[in-house]
Amino acid sequence: MTLPKPEDLAIRSLGECRFSSPLQLGAASGEYHGEFMPDAAKVRFYVELESLDARPDDLFFERAGPRERLFFDPTKVRAAIVTCGGLCPGINNVIRSAFLALKYNYGVPEVYGIRYGYRGLNPAYGDGFLLLTHEMVETIHLQGGTFLGSSRGPQPVGVMLDTLAARGIDMLFCVGGDGTQRGADAIARAAREQGRSLAVVGIPKTIDNDIPYVFRSFGYGTAVEKAREVIAGAHAEAKGAPNGIVIVKLMGRNAGFIAAGATTASQEVNFAFIPELSFDLEPPNGFLAHLERRVLDRGHAVVVVAEGAGQHLFGDLPAERDASGNVKHHDIGTYLRDRIIAHFRDRRIEANVKYIDPSYIIRSVAANCDDAQLSDRFARYAVHAAMAGKTDLLIGYWHGLFVHVPMRLVTSRKKHLSPKSSLWLSVLATTGQPALMVNAPPLEPPAS
Amino acid sequence: MTLPKPEDLAIRSLGECRFSSPLQLGAASGEYHGEFMPDAAKVRFYVELESLDARPDDLFFERAGPRERLFFDPTKVRAAIVTCGGLCPGINNVIRSAFLALKYNYGVPEVYGIRYGYRGLNPAYGDGFLLLTHEMVETIHLQGGTFLGSSRGPQPVGVMLDTLAARGIDMLFCVGGDGTQRGADAIARAAREQGRSLAVVGIPKTIDNDIPYVFRSFGYGTAVEKAREVIAGAHAEAKGAPNGIVIVKLMGRNAGFIAAGATTASQEVNFAFIPELSFDLEPPNGFLAHLERRVLDRGHAVVVVAEGAGQHLFGDLPAERDASGNVKHHDIGTYLRDRIIAHFRDRRIEANVKYIDPSYIIRSVAANCDDAQLSDRFARYAVHAAMAGKTDLLIGYWHGLFVHVPMRLVTSRKKHLSPKSSLWLSVLATTGQPALMVNAPPLEPPAS
Amino acid sequence: MTLPKPEDLAIRSLGECRFSSPLQLGAASGEYHGEFMPDAAKVRFYVELESLDARPDDLFFERAGPRERLFFDPTKVRAAIVTCGGLCPGINNVIRSAFLALKYNYGVPEVYGIRYGYRGLNPAYGDGFLLLTHEMVETIHLQGGTFLGSSRGPQPVGVMLDTLAARGIDMLFCVGGDGTQRGADAIARAAREQGRSLAVVGIPKTIDNDIPYVFRSFGYGTAVEKAREVIAGAHAEAKGAPNGIVIVKLMGRNAGFIAAGATTASQEVNFAFIPELSFDLEPPNGFLAHLERRVLDRGHAVVVVAEGAGQHLFGDLPAERDASGNVKHHDIGTYLRDRIIAHFRDRRIEANVKYIDPSYIIRSVAANCDDAQLSDRFARYAVHAAMAGKTDLLIGYWHGLFVHVPMRLVTSRKKHLSPKSSLWLSVLATTGQPALMVNAPPLEPPAS
Amino acid sequence: MTLPKPEDLAIRSLGECRFSSPLQLGAASGEYHGEFMPDAAKVRFYVELESLDARPDDLFFERAGPRERLFFDPTKVRAAIVTCGGLCPGINNVIRSAFLALKYNYGVPEVYGIRYGYRGLNPAYGDGFLLLTHEMVETIHLQGGTFLGSSRGPQPVGVMLDTLAARGIDMLFCVGGDGTQRGADAIARAAREQGRSLAVVGIPKTIDNDIPYVFRSFGYGTAVEKAREVIAGAHAEAKGAPNGIVIVKLMGRNAGFIAAGATTASQEVNFAFIPELSFDLEPPNGFLAHLERRVLDRGHAVVVVAEGAGQHLFGDLPAERDASGNVKHHDIGTYLRDRIIAHFRDRRIEANVKYIDPSYIIRSVAANCDDAQLSDRFARYAVHAAMAGKTDLLIGYWHGLFVHVPMRLVTSRKKHLSPKSSLWLSVLATTGQPALMVNAPPLEPPAS
Repeated sequence: MTLPKPEDLAIRSLGECRFSSPLQLGAASGEYHGEFMPDAAKVRFYVELESLDARPDDLFFERAGPRERLFFDPTKVRAAIVTCGGLCPGINNVIRSAFLALKYNYGVPEVYGIRYGYRGLNPAYGDGFLLLTHEMVETIHLQGGTFLGSSRGPQPVGVMLDTLAARGIDMLFCVGGDGTQRGADAIARAAREQGRSLAVVGIPKTIDNDIPYVFRSFGYGTAVEKAREVIAGAHAEAKGAPNGIVIVKLMGRNAGFIAAGATTASQEVNFAFIPELSFDLEPPNGFLAHLERRVLDRGHAVVVVAEGAGQHLFGDLPAERDASGNVKHHDIGTYLRDRIIAHFRDRRIEANVKYIDPSYIIRSVAANCDDAQLSDRFARYAVHAAMAGKTDLLIGYWHGLFVHVPMRLVTSRKKHLSPKSSLWLSVLATTGQPALMVNAPPLEPPAS
Repeated sequence: MTLPKPEDLAIRSLGECRFSSPLQLGAASGEYHGEFMPDAAKVRFYVELESLDARPDDLFFERAGPRERLFFDPTKVRAAIVTCGGLCPGINNVIRSAFLALKYNYGVPEVYGIRYGYRGLNPAYGDGFLLLTHEMVETIHLQGGTFLGSSRGPQPVGVMLDTLAARGIDMLFCVGGDGTQRGADAIARAAREQGRSLAVVGIPKTIDNDIPYVFRSFGYGTAVEKAREVIAGAHAEAKGAPNGIVIVKLMGRNAGFIAAGATTASQEVNFAFIPELSFDLEPPNGFLAHLERRVLDRGHAVVVVAEGAGQHLFGDLPAERDASGNVKHHDIGTYLRDRIIAHFRDRRIEANVKYIDPSYIIRSVAANCDDAQLSDRFARYAVHAAMAGKTDLLIGYWHGLFVHVPMRLVTSRKKHLSPKSSLWLSVLATTGQPALMVNAPPLEPPAS
Repeated sequence: MTLPKPEDLAIRSLGECRFSSPLQLGAASGEYHGEFMPDAAKVRFYVELESLDARPDDLFFERAGPRERLFFDPTKVRAAIVTCGGLCPGINNVIRSAFLALKYNYGVPEVYGIRYGYRGLNPAYGDGFLLLTHEMVETIHLQGGTFLGSSRGPQPVGVMLDTLAARGIDMLFCVGGDGTQRGADAIARAAREQGRSLAVVGIPKTIDNDIPYVFRSFGYGTAVEKAREVIAGAHAEAKGAPNGIVIVKLMGRNAGFIAAGATTASQEVNFAFIPELSFDLEPPNGFLAHLERRVLDRGHAVVVVAEGAGQHLFGDLPAERDASGNVKHHDIGTYLRDRIIAHFRDRRIEANVKYIDPSYIIRSVAANCDDAQLSDRFARYAVHAAMAGKTDLLIGYWHGLFVHVPMRLVTSRKKHLSPKSSLWLSVLATTGQPALMVNAPPLEPPAS
Repeated sequence: MTLPKPEDLAIRSLGECRFSSPLQLGAASGEYHGEFMPDAAKVRFYVELESLDARPDDLFFERAGPRERLFFDPTKVRAAIVTCGGLCPGINNVIRSAFLALKYNYGVPEVYGIRYGYRGLNPAYGDGFLLLTHEMVETIHLQGGTFLGSSRGPQPVGVMLDTLAARGIDMLFCVGGDGTQRGADAIARAAREQGRSLAVVGIPKTIDNDIPYVFRSFGYGTAVEKAREVIAGAHAEAKGAPNGIVIVKLMGRNAGFIAAGATTASQEVNFAFIPELSFDLEPPNGFLAHLERRVLDRGHAVVVVAEGAGQHLFGDLPAERDASGNVKHHDIGTYLRDRIIAHFRDRRIEANVKYIDPSYIIRSVAANCDDAQLSDRFARYAVHAAMAGKTDLLIGYWHGLFVHVPMRLVTSRKKHLSPKSSLWLSVLATTGQPALMVNAPPLEPPAS
């Protein structure tokens, strides 16, 4: 990964903070029960040291938190929330907490929800503005989905900015993945070019947990939990038939966090494949022989595969893209299933092969307890940032603390599951699978 | 349905009951805390009366329960349990409770589990006998699947009977669906022909809830519960996109109980299709126009379809069968999805169509609380019946009471969801779907 | 139990049915997809026969269901729903389904919810009428509690009737236990005396499952499910300490259904006590010696006690009553705990005794899947009955079918768990506890 | 908090590592799929910087992970696991993963479980050694409690060490809280004094999440999840009655993490009290007036109180201690309930006050998905540390990474919930409660 420079971590501001925060915190009460966060508060970029070798010591994220001085007058501000892309547990919690923080903590008179993603900002699709009330959002956090609706794909930046201007919106909260944040970045930059005081703050939404500088994004844990349930069923199916083999395909386009997390949580998986690591199927060291050995030895096997894994096995077949611009992967799940069936048939070994694709099932549920807390905080920290006039930033989560991440840092890359990580080490330990299932390992170890 | 005759309901017995039950019940204690059930105890066949018209009044099931006198000496009996066919929540509970009832309530010294269904009774597949212990089964009821494993399809009756004889088995408990019970019937009849005192008792296992004389089979409720969760997610997906339409395919080869139960439990389904009722897709009264109206009106829709529904739409395409002899249905789920996509595309109406097939996910989970109780009782009543020397029977559940059903009554037909039932009435009320979506209704009402 | 006479089962009607039902059922469509239920449809009272002895053959309940002819003009009717007494899973489902059935199936223009039970009908407490809308009730079935609020205790019948008259209410749905139904009965009778065409229909709400002629009431199954969870924890606590003993107190004032159901569902209880059966603590055959033996033998024990059990152990101590008139029982849970601690201390045997009282925890959750279905049907059948002008009745559930039960039959007695029932037999089988733990059993067996 | 010095963070070692690790990681395969961790790998102590003021830059924890060189010959090692203190979700996962890592990853021939805590190491209580097998532990992670049993309180160090020596134990894994880790520290120090090569590694178990240098301990998240369920029920009860007030008492002797976590997760709490912050009940700024205002305003209220909160309200009443030496707190839950009842009665305001104490219910359940992962890793990292001959240390979790913490650092203090933390800020934001409910705030702000 390319190293950011100190200036890359600077956060843009709309201007001087001339208003006092209405929050009853800290100094006001003479004691530190909850506190305002000074702009100077930082969080170190690096925390790991190997062999005490030199790491740049001057890299810090600005820390998130309520500011004592605000750019906007909270009694006059008009805010809007938009949710984009696929469902993810916790979106409703984000909507609700952002609304509550704006309305009741800061006293903002009007908070709008934008219907169906960025297209709600394009009048060509009709009026997408919904004035939110307490009654509307009171219990939405108990359900999955997004109360506002969502859609994929970009809209013209100029049109969106005009709509926001026409409605007098001062701050826009963009809940979504990297495509959404690219859109947010574009809106923020366009507003700046036009001299408009619009705060644009991103809230990272990625069920795959693949947004950089976000140690853990809301919804990921819930998805792993549901995936674990599916794997428990797969395990029952595998053990329920002679030489039962069950393949479970899980989400994870570019990152294997869900597959790896569900594998270590369930402790019942024998092989896990993620997009970050390639593997072969055929001898001498391919997957099928390992699987055959496992099945002959123990009578059953559970295989977990992330949807983005094993794409190299499809050779040069061209891949399509969805409306968000995401690559539509070749279906590794059914491919593995068919190859396994053929392998055992060819070798005249009985095998009862089943395939489970939970698809939307793991992403459309309500946030679990941890994700309820995470999404609540992402939302509230986003509000604090916007009220202080910060813009073109994403709320990050780094070393257990919430931070401000410049949007351009986020949109340029994805987070991947490191094969050197504790998580992948756990996968290897619990599955007992070979660290490598490739036939031609690199002759030389890669530079670390 | 053809009416049984009184003699059809008689239960076969292996002979005179010469042993006293070791159970400390009823008269033994001078008070009725738990009681022995006399053979003369009956349960009425008919309970509904329409217009007080005549219904045969002499039809009764024999009531299940512990008998005071036993055919087998419990201290010398050898029992075996076999589980066949697809997974169903509660199988492990049945195995465990049958074992515990035999071992601890009756003091039976040896209880065997048969591995992988009927093939465990065929030595060609190796030794399928597992001597069960308390440690083995202690916590299996907390997990889905079958501890013993299962398989599909029949085995030669003579071979199975020889194996049972060679191992000295006196009673065989067959947990399975109609195919399994046909096998149990064949074993019981062959044993009788050979003059062997083998008690064969069936325990009905059908996640589709389609075994006759079993008001509610274990596992069905758990499957509905999981299906309801899937529908909740589908509802979130449908509302999450403009004109979102989600199709959920649920189990139900010949009977729509799961689809109907999950629909009324969730209250979020707009159209439900079951195998018992045909429907058209095209105008004037077909489904697609109703769906279009719903979507234009409310912006989203959830469609539930049982796997066996709408097979008439495939015309004369021949259907395959699985190893159990079950018809492999044409895939109505993807068919509906494709037709819906085409319909909206042709009419240039935006629609975001998603398809969810939870498949094994709803059948491989642990039994919920109700099914835990049901499976416990089916198992214990089966043990009581076998100890009393009754054979060639299935444990039924009729008007809230457990009964003995002659096996031949069960294997000749399937239970269906009546369109006149309270359950279907609930589906119509909650979905608001038209009672009929056919273009050419019958000119005359059918005879009731 | 005293046997009702045929005339006791007759249902009161407000008069001639002069309106056609707007429901699109049955004959209307030329086929029986869902059907109207004729008034002549009956459900047999008796279904069990012991020794084929004579049971009155002329006892039937009127069957519930939609009538083709209505007493009220649905386009002009005004309905109200009131919920009384303690919380029970499913109340919100009842409110929602009754509203939906009235509003969308029948087209009733105004449906009111009464706030906080019968006091909402007493203007002394302010205006208790809330005009219900679809938005209000849309998702309430996903949560526990009662959307309308509840209260205990009666209100003056004349006042309530005047309030109903002043608001032009034609039908009142009373969701509650026996106290509530006594109130409903009083309102219905007073209305009749005043010549008012007010339909009063009761919907049985009893988490204890103790309303007669209701085989299973909504909420009971959910409570058992939560109780099972608590018992699972108790089991873990008991096994986690040397000679660990955990006592769990469960709901059940007069009936042991929850304690018995949770015991058979969990399979991890060693002693279960219910109000229906007395027991001694001291030798020769009292509980404490049995418990000691169990603990010395296995190292731990789980004891479940219904709150109404063992009241005889308190001798003549007077008991209080709550606002609903329910007896406030002596605390058998802490009493047992203290006696167990003393017993083991006196005998110098180590014992780690813990006590768990889940109290409100098991009653304030959302309805599980089965209760969601049950409560939906109770509500819809109540609406059908009221639209047809039936009054002073409760919706019952008998032999798997919904029926009309005259209110006076219900309010005169409670349902108890029979020690001869299949449920209690299951408790004895799974706990292995002695059928009797009394020191002086009756000398002669009671007449059956 | 007193600042450690660099030397305080050094980890004790049993000696030179002369054996190669059998793990197939990293360099062995020519690529970094999972990797060995060098001893020089460190994790920064400080990560937060306020105003960029100086913080010592030379404080690091040693990073946990598999070492390439081992002190023990894995083919000859004998290991033991002991679990002490109260139950906590995930203990079984720890036992299981430690066993699997030892047995299957390292090939250790004998792994013992010690029954019932440290007393299992005292022969006065009988033989406490259980040779673990795969069958024993295969499914224990799916259940709550501890498979090995637990107990409270210390045992003589000399006796324990002698027992370990007599059984030839080379490494001891101590799963428990600060009392347990003090015992582990004593054993490790005594072994060192006797020149014995015994590796003692602590695994932090604290449902209250109050062990220092452990950002998040296993079981805490599950407890919060169960607490959230209880609060949801409390909310339903509160809304279900006129002026309903429900008090929920949650675990948290010295730290309010569970109360605060459950409050922010549920979003339905109006007042939360933790041990770290005192509060008054009476005017001018005490709790009761705030509660009264809330109830009159909104008609209901939910109050959450940690068991260790508000102890100052009991004045000088002496407190008892349990067998582990933990202070037994005065019962703040019933105290608050009684004061609330009295307050509203005195002011003649109707209030329906209910009290819920879930007690053991939230700690005896199985680990949720996150805790399953956490406990797996704590266990495996402990095994890696012991195999490398490290001793007298606890596995910590710091900035998202697992680290080695010298035992003496841990046993000297407890972790507290900082009123300046993001968690407490969330509590204030969601409850809207005043940051302070004390009548006499300190005149001057404390030094940070």
